[in-house]
This record gives sequence, C-alpha cells and structure tokens, in this order.
Amino acid sequence: MSATRSWLDSANGDTDFPIRNLPYGVFDDGGGARCGVAIGDRILDVGKVHHGLDPTLFAEPAWNAVMAAGPAVWAALRARLTELLSDAAHRPAVEPHLVPMAGARLLMPFRVSEYTDFYAGRHHATNVGTMFRGAENALPPNWLSIPIGYNGRASSVVVSGTPVRRPWGQVKGPNDELPRFAPSARFDIELEIGAIVGQPSEGMVPVAAADEMIFGYVLLNDWSARDIQAWEYQPLGPFQAKATATTISPWIVTRAALEPFRTATPEPERPLLPYLTPSRPGLYDIDLEIGLTPEGGTETVIARTNYREMYYSSAQQLAHHTTSGCPMRVGDLLGSGTISGPDRENRGSLLELSWGGKEPFALAGGATRSFVEDGDTLVLRGAAKGDGYRIGFGECSGQLLPAVAQPDWAR
Amino acid sequence: MSATRSWLDSANGDTDFPIRNLPYGVFDDGGGARCGVAIGDRILDVGKVHHGLDPTLFAEPAWNAVMAAGPAVWAALRARLTELLSDAAHRPAVEPHLVPMAGARLLMPFRVSEYTDFYAGRHHATNVGTMFRGAENALPPNWLSIPIGYNGRASSVVVSGTPVRRPWGQVKGPNDELPRFAPSARFDIELEIGAIVGQPSEGMVPVAAADEMIFGYVLLNDWSARDIQAWEYQPLGPFQAKATATTISPWIVTRAALEPFRTATPEPERPLLPYLTPSRPGLYDIDLEIGLTPEGGTETVIARTNYREMYYSSAQQLAHHTTSGCPMRVGDLLGSGTISGPDRENRGSLLELSWGGKEPFALAGGATRSFVEDGDTLVLRGAAKGDGYRIGFGECSGQLLPAVAQPDWAR
Repeated sequence: MSATRSWLDSANGDTDFPIRNLPYGVFDDGGGARCGVAIGDRILDVGKVHHGLDPTLFAEPAWNAVMAAGPAVWAALRARLTELLSDAAHRPAVEPHLVPMAGARLLMPFRVSEYTDFYAGRHHATNVGTMFRGAENALPPNWLSIPIGYNGRASSVVVSGTPVRRPWGQVKGPNDELPRFAPSARFDIELEIGAIVGQPSEGMVPVAAADEMIFGYVLLNDWSARDIQAWEYQPLGPFQAKATATTISPWIVTRAALEPFRTATPEPERPLLPYLTPSRPGLYDIDLEIGLTPEGGTETVIARTNYREMYYSSAQQLAHHTTSGCPMRVGDLLGSGTISGPDRENRGSLLELSWGGKEPFALAGGATRSFVEDGDTLVLRGAAKGDGYRIGFGECSGQLLPAVAQPDWAR
Repeated sequence: MSATRSWLDSANGDTDFPIRNLPYGVFDDGGGARCGVAIGDRILDVGKVHHGLDPTLFAEPAWNAVMAAGPAVWAALRARLTELLSDAAHRPAVEPHLVPMAGARLLMPFRVSEYTDFYAGRHHATNVGTMFRGAENALPPNWLSIPIGYNGRASSVVVSGTPVRRPWGQVKGPNDELPRFAPSARFDIELEIGAIVGQPSEGMVPVAAADEMIFGYVLLNDWSARDIQAWEYQPLGPFQAKATATTISPWIVTRAALEPFRTATPEPERPLLPYLTPSRPGLYDIDLEIGLTPEGGTETVIARTNYREMYYSSAQQLAHHTTSGCPMRVGDLLGSGTISGPDRENRGSLLELSWGGKEPFALAGGATRSFVEDGDTLVLRGAAKGDGYRIGFGECSGQLLPAVAQPDWAR
C-alpha cells in the first residue's frame, strides 16, 4: 500500500521523514541500542510493534538481518509500516513506541561488511585530472569504459556525529628530496552517496539484477588526506589517505522510497560494453549540499549539487564489481564517487572548490578555506523533492579534531 | 614449557607438524566443523580436551575468539597443548580426540575481517617495474619509503583446495582502440605470506607493538589477472584483477612457533622514517616453493624462494597501516607482497618467471607456460627448517577451472 499522510502530525509538514520515506536506523534513547524507523520528529521502535515478521530480524541493533531476509520481506515490512503509521486505527498500539528523535543517539545503522569507493563523477574526475595531469589528460583512458573503483577500509566507516581526528602520514612536497612524517595539511572531504548491498552474489550479475540487490542509500563523506594520497597512491592506489574515517548518515533511505525519483545516467560518450548497459534509469534526482561551520562560527553552504550528475549508477558499479567472480555480501557499502556538478558552486570537495588550494574560497564572516581546518564541522545534507514533500537523508556530520601529538617513537 | 618430542610417533619424524609447531585450523571429519590443532598426521579436536581455558573460545569453528582473548591466552594455550601432547601421562585422555588428518576436510581457519595486500618484495617490485616502466624507473619513487599496500577483498579469500574459476573482465591490448569483455588470458599467481592480526588497534601503533599484535602466519596465493589489471589499475590501483580469489593455507602457524627463525629485514637503501624503524628482526627464515601440475600431469617445482627476501616486515606494514588512525581488527589479513629472490628460479609469479610472457618456461614432460592454463593446479609450500625438524605450513593449493560461458546479457 502507499499513503501520503500519517496520523502523526510532525510527519506531514516540513520534515525529512514523511510517511513516504520510512528510513531505517539504529538508535539509543537510554534504553539500549535497537532498530528504528524515522517518522516526522519521532523514531518508531520497530521491534516493539506488530510488524508481522520474524522477531529475530530486529534482535540485533543493525539492519543486516532484514537485508539478508530478501526483497519479499523488504516489501512486506514497508507495507506494514505504512499501514501502521497512516491508519489511525493503529495509533493507540503504535504511539507508545514512538521515541522523540531529539532525545535519541543515532548509531551505525548496519554492520559494514566491506567498503568500496568509486570514482564515477564526470565533473569530479575532470576537475581532479585537470589539476594533476592537465586538461589534455584529465580523464584516464579507461574512465569512459570502467566504473573505476578501489577497495576501502570498512573498519573506518563511522556514523554521523563521530568526531574525526586529523591523521598523520607520510607527505612529500614537490621540491622535497625525502618524505616527512607529519599531520596531513591538506585534509579534505568528498560528498558521495553510499549504496548498501542487501543481497549476496556469487558470480557475474547483470545491471538489472544488481539494481535489485541494493537495499538503500545513505549520504557518505569520504574524508581524504590529499597530501598523503599524492605521495602514496602510485602505483597501487589510495590507502592511508582514505583510511582515517568515512562518515555515513544514520538513516538508510530505501530504494523503494526513492523509486519516484529515478533518472537516467547520461548518454555514454563512448559506447559501454553490453554488461554495463542499463536496463532502466539508474540514478536518482537528489539535491545535495555541503555546509561548513568553523569552531564557534556560523555555517556556510559551500556547495550544492545533485546525484543525477553521476556518469555511472550504483547498479552499474555493483555489476562491474562482480565481473571477476568477486562475492558480494549483505552489508557491503559502495561509495558513488564524489558528486560534483558542472559549475564552481557544484564542486563536491574542497580540493575542487579551492582548485588545489590555489583559490581559497570565502566563508560567511570573512574567513577563507582551502582545506578543512581543526575544529571545522562539515555537514552533508540531501533530499529528493516531491510535490509537497521530500525524501530526506538527515545529516551526515563530522567535526575535525586536531592531530594527536607526535609520539616519541615517531620522532 | 617447551618440548621437542611428542608421545605421538608421527609428530617426531618427517612432518610439517612436530610438537614445536602446533598450528591452528578448522576441520570437519563428518562430525561438523570445529577448531583443531595439527600434530604429526593427526588433528587434535581441541575443544574436547582439558585445555583449561574458557570453553566458549572454541564454540565457533574459527580461531577469532582465541585471537580476541589476547596474548596471555595465546601463551597459556600453547603451553597447555605442548604439555598435553608431550607428557605421556596425558595420552589416555588426549588420544581419543586425535582425528586422522587424511580423513578430514580442512576449512577456513578464521573469519577474515579485512584483507590488505602489500608490495614489499624488492626483487618482485624491481622485476615488475622493469617490465612495465623500464629498468631506469623500475621502483616507484615512494617504494623505499613506504610499505606500499592496497585494500583487497576479504570475501574472496578461500582455503586451500578450493577451485578457482578463470575470471571475465575488461581487457585491452596495447594496439586495441577499445576494451573487450573477455576471460582473462594472463591469469597468474603470487607467492606470499599472510600475517593474521590477532589484536585490535585504535590510533597509531609502533612497530614493536604491531609485531605483538600478530597472531600467526599462513601461505597466501594472490591470484591475479594481469590483463585486467593492466587496463584497470590507473589511477586507483588493482580492483577486479585481484578479486577472483586469494587462497590461504589451512593452518595458522603461530608467531610463537616461528620465534627461533627470526631474521632481520635488509639494511635500508634509503633511511626509514623513525616510525618504521624495526626494534628487532621482523622477518623469518622460511623456505618457500611453488609447484605447478597440469591437469592429469606431474608436478614441476617452478620456483624456490625464502620469506627473508622481503624488504619490509609484516610488523612494519601493520604499523604503517595504523598511521592514519585506521582501526585494525581481530582477523585482519595482511599479504606480504610477492616473495621473489634475486635469481630467475626465485621468482614468485608466472609474470616474472615468463618475463611478461616473452620467455615461456618449461615444465616436466615438455609443456611450457607463460600464465596459468585451465586445469593447472598451483601449490605453495613453506617450512622453517630447524635442526632435525621443520615448522611447516602444509599446502596452499588451488586448481584453475575454465571461465564460465559468456552470459547472453554480456554479449
């Protein structure tokens, strides 16, 4: 069933979480961590209501068991939640299990099995390539054929609100003879969407089936130490530069909730190999923005963009991920790659916004930034906008703390 | 306690598994998967004997719980096993729990949390770099400063004996205008040692403490599709080329068992940054070999080398892995990088042995090889050799099966 209004007033007004959204998270209001569903300004303690499903699906404070249960369960749960929260007859039984979101701590919504990050935004790849290799060689030769990706570090994925510590690492300036061990001086963010794999695979999977394996999406900030990356990444790719933290938003917005916002990937500039040909629109129209707040200061929105700017969809990325026979698992997280748009104000990283630090940009109040400074809080926000409602992701936030002091053994 | 002889005769002769070894695995003799310890030609069903430890450590068929319990438990277990298997007074109680290894199936000895692969062999990096970039530019500029690594795919790690399916992927010859989707025609192996992280970390860890975090070692075959790798790896590193399978040997040889064989990393050719300076010898004197058996044919030993040929130790690699603050977890697996020696017969990959396919090498019986052919079985073997005994790893074996037929949707 579908419904447009809830008996809960706060779900019907200006909210990221109307009844058409119903995203899945994990919360703790002092009573222990458990699975919840966002509705208006409340969280439904889903394990406590008559959901009609196997209760062990909610035994653990993570959505992995529901994901593993498969698409029929995903559909049944969404239908039941819609009914419980729209039909006033259920209000007396359900309302006691609504927790104020303002008083709850939001935790990691699922256990990340493995984390893969892609590089699938045309504007981002062109910007970065132009800075590093010149406009003539901006796109690597394989970029228009392969949804380029690399394996990231699942243990570094944290939920919104977790502080991030500026990392140490090997850095070497272009005129230095040898590298130094130092705190990163070019610490950055990347605005991405993360796709969560809800069903496992063995062997090659076509794009259409890969799409069906995706359970939902989160906002994702791929914190990146550009100076560490520049020295380490040849020839085997980014490693410690991307291992400090990757922050995700706390609510899994389901694929079902985003269906009305599907939009096609662009016409390929080079014909795609048949295994990558999409069978249906694979992107979503999701407005995105980045806010930066200096410590004790006010927020400046430093970029606005949209997920439809990507060249490859998550379904194409997932299909490519399986070509080698690589087994995919429930709880795998796929970062889309940085989502930049065509114009300066659409750039999804500080590296691009400040053009490699050469053109610092202004914040409200007069300060400028090239990269993230200690105490800065970076917030990603996103929402798909319908007629009179929006499917919001909540916030994906993190404050940068200063680097730890240099240990004696590293001197 | 230490002991040199067991009351079990087969542990005192020509065996990989004397009482000084006592490696940890998981087996199934028809009675279900459970933790076991190799001794001579038997497996001790360790959960059934009076080990004096918390029985829940062996509740699951994986060694992760023992690893998580920490070094004091590691030492207590090893001491107790040594006592049980050397003191004849324990024979009546222990012998009923010895299972013939020949009748048991060996399974994955632990759950792999995440898998990182390094590139830390000087000879291998020089060989590959010479082939790809010429002798002048063989070593990347960062190689002598950084133990270069990349994140691999934990879901693809399999135990010895698991067949490996030749992968499909994007390949593009140097004279092709566009890539094709095809089975890999340059499928290869890499002879490595895998270090298993037995304790977690948060924040930077010095080399000495990293060494103490390592629980044990396995042989590791990093199957690699060279043609897929060549087209995909710029700029973010190997991805699908390394995701088909990584095979490990079934027995975790403990760090304790290898202590007598410690040997130093070579004098650095460029001074190492202080955080990478070793406090004690970090390598081990382990003889290694690769056997290749064509389907229905006889084995040829195609290479012999030694783990002491590495430039960086696993402890240095692990310390580097933590510099960014990357959290390490119990069950992380670190591949050493390909272990090649100085001479042609010491090369740890077919890519090197056949010099990129330009110099096919001969097998017993007259056949030649440049890369792995369908039906070939590749076996890695390794042992540290003491006076009248050896600390063996058992076999790390896998047969290459033909690629699956091309699916209609990929045409």
